Amino acid sequence: MNNTTAEIITIGDEILFGQITDTNSQWMSAELDKMGIKTVRKTSIGDVESEILQIFDEAASRADIVLITGGLGPTKDDITKKTIAKVLDDELIINEHALEFITDFFTKRGREMTELNRLQAAIPSKSTYLHNDSGTAPGMWFIYKDSVFVSMPGVPHEMKNLMEKEVIPRLKNYFQAPIITHKIMGTVGIGESFLAEMIEEWEDQLPKHIKLAYLPGRGQVRLRLTGIGENAAKLSEEIDAEIEKVLPQIQKYVYSLTGETLPEAVGRLLTERNETVSIAESCTGGFASHLFTSIPGSSAYFEGSVVSYANEVKMNVLKVEEKTLQNHGAVSEETVKEMAEGVRKLMGTTYGLATSGVAGPGGGTPEKPVGTVFIAVSSAEKTVCRKLELTLQRGINIEYASYWVINLLRIIINKQK
Amino acid sequence: MNNTTAEIITIGDEILFGQITDTNSQWMSAELDKMGIKTVRKTSIGDVESEILQIFDEAASRADIVLITGGLGPTKDDITKKTIAKVLDDELIINEHALEFITDFFTKRGREMTELNRLQAAIPSKSTYLHNDSGTAPGMWFIYKDSVFVSMPGVPHEMKNLMEKEVIPRLKNYFQAPIITHKIMGTVGIGESFLAEMIEEWEDQLPKHIKLAYLPGRGQVRLRLTGIGENAAKLSEEIDAEIEKVLPQIQKYVYSLTGETLPEAVGRLLTERNETVSIAESCTGGFASHLFTSIPGSSAYFEGSVVSYANEVKMNVLKVEEKTLQNHGAVSEETVKEMAEGVRKLMGTTYGLATSGVAGPGGGTPEKPVGTVFIAVSSAEKTVCRKLELTLQRGINIEYASYWVINLLRIIINKQK
Repeated sequence: MNNTTAEIITIGDEILFGQITDTNSQWMSAELDKMGIKTVRKTSIGDVESEILQIFDEAASRADIVLITGGLGPTKDDITKKTIAKVLDDELIINEHALEFITDFFTKRGREMTELNRLQAAIPSKSTYLHNDSGTAPGMWFIYKDSVFVSMPGVPHEMKNLMEKEVIPRLKNYFQAPIITHKIMGTVGIGESFLAEMIEEWEDQLPKHIKLAYLPGRGQVRLRLTGIGENAAKLSEEIDAEIEKVLPQIQKYVYSLTGETLPEAVGRLLTERNETVSIAESCTGGFASHLFTSIPGSSAYFEGSVVSYANEVKMNVLKVEEKTLQNHGAVSEETVKEMAEGVRKLMGTTYGLATSGVAGPGGGTPEKPVGTVFIAVSSAEKTVCRKLELTLQRGINIEYASYWVINLLRIIINKQK
Repeated sequence: MNNTTAEIITIGDEILFGQITDTNSQWMSAELDKMGIKTVRKTSIGDVESEILQIFDEAASRADIVLITGGLGPTKDDITKKTIAKVLDDELIINEHALEFITDFFTKRGREMTELNRLQAAIPSKSTYLHNDSGTAPGMWFIYKDSVFVSMPGVPHEMKNLMEKEVIPRLKNYFQAPIITHKIMGTVGIGESFLAEMIEEWEDQLPKHIKLAYLPGRGQVRLRLTGIGENAAKLSEEIDAEIEKVLPQIQKYVYSLTGETLPEAVGRLLTERNETVSIAESCTGGFASHLFTSIPGSSAYFEGSVVSYANEVKMNVLKVEEKTLQNHGAVSEETVKEMAEGVRKLMGTTYGLATSGVAGPGGGTPEKPVGTVFIAVSSAEKTVCRKLELTLQRGINIEYASYWVINLLRIIINKQK
């Protein structure tokens, strides 16, 4: 499967004309990559028969696998299925499993089923029915010019469901997948290019069957090691040995070896230690809380937070001293420390986090330009503060400051170990 | 320009292998669409010379404009520029403007400039230099087989900057753009397909030079009317007349006629009325606050919020009665109303918003399954509550509940008018 190639085709005007962002093809190619399948091209086209016919021929000539999303809705604009039948010189036949499921789908929702809905159960007779349990458009698997084609709906959760339950297992079986093992090192606090420079020698000495990928995110870079071989236990050992080699160089940036996100890793640390956290957010405006509360089960360690945009809220709720605000301003080490202490006491948590800064685009001064952010972490023992100099962009400043304050908590917890 | 077509090509393994989501091509095609230029295909390929050569020929045969991003970095992987020179049967020549800018870029940052960096100033002699003021890779404009090709870096803010300052004005000039006018109606509380059904007759009677596009988002659908003609004032009048026709049917769902997002529209209402808002968030965990605080200048009306995950925070900070929590539970009309009242009084704002629900995946019960959310808006006069039955997915529930509570505030403000 090492040399198996894939191509992804999205069909529909919403993506082509920029009305929605295509997140499907990113997810699909990442899944293929995990299986050791290389995506060689991605194409978006409209609901136009001649375009579909042309790209099917092109894709079949280039790739072993062609994954298609979109164009399977009940309306007349959606012509993917009809075009597949044409390509296969085939006709559409009602699939009984599909019809049963769709009928049930409408019955349960108390909605009337129209002829258009019934026709969603029709698929080309030469294609294999793939059961979509979260929508009314079935998936289809067929062979065209010796390549495997899979057609799925474009709704992201329907596509993901079909991929996970039907497509990926079938692809693994069809192409006799080798053993593939992944391990992910999560790093924070260092940019991708600096990290790459730092570990260049190690990367160059990796054995051929172990590959490194950089997965960059906001304020984080995840390093994924992928091993391809025949013995899972041996592969796992080999990858671990490589991680052992590189860890000493990058230890201070590594927050996890299990693929977690940074907030998940910090949440796990808190859970293990039976500790709790609360946040006082000024410039981050709720986003740092959102990073924790997006995680299922975060109520075990996350007690709550105060978003204190107004100085009155800083004083009345968080008990920041009026004279601190007067003497040093809201964006200062002194204020952010009092905010962190204040929220910790208010919520009765082990740690109190705080952010205060100039997110922009307005509000900057010569001493405190846009991007100036103070972050703090308070515990019963002490309160630690850092000053950040971020960017001119509000959205990026909010995200970075949120990740940095969570990372500061991680650093402080690790020092206690 | 009505029949002018474009194609978008992204070059680079990060997008192809799914390491990052391609947001560039969505943004670019939306900008082209605004100019009346139809994107006919989007393609992602790797940094492979033969692939680049092939797609250049294909694209030139299909489209009038070919926008290319990526592959312009200083490292040896990035071969776009070299390949462009090959396609044009040309050579790379140092551009003096580019060299000056890059030299200055490194000097200002106190970083050493390497030969690789210097070579970033080289572009094919037959191409036009496009100044990129936020990075070291210049843009290039060239003609190939009678089509306009533009090559830009893949870093989103560099690409956007180049598009706005250099590419869009040049395209308008080159293709002698007609007058294009857009107006956007923002709707909330109704799904795209129901909305489409409701306004079908109106859509069918639109004159040919006025087109309707649906721009769906979480809990919102924006309707964009685009008119193409020769007289801006007349076009604007014609579009307004069409909006007047459809408004009575959909008035209750329309939150704005200016293209604002829902939180922006509510922020504007609050600013106009000199009123303020605060939020008590349980299941939304900070996301509703984030929607307001993402907006520049939101500190004018947004005072702050309390994320109250723990019941202690609901009682101690928001002053929810212990017996309310005991008798009705945290996810209840009674609790969410007390939360909304509590935060309003705590922060001294005109309105207090609140959310409490079962975001999932855990925590559901037969009476209150995952997706059950109560939202409330409190003012000095009264407190209004709504029960929502959302989905099984945590992320979606958080987003929807956040938008719905902001929309409930909008409805209440509008009733007061």
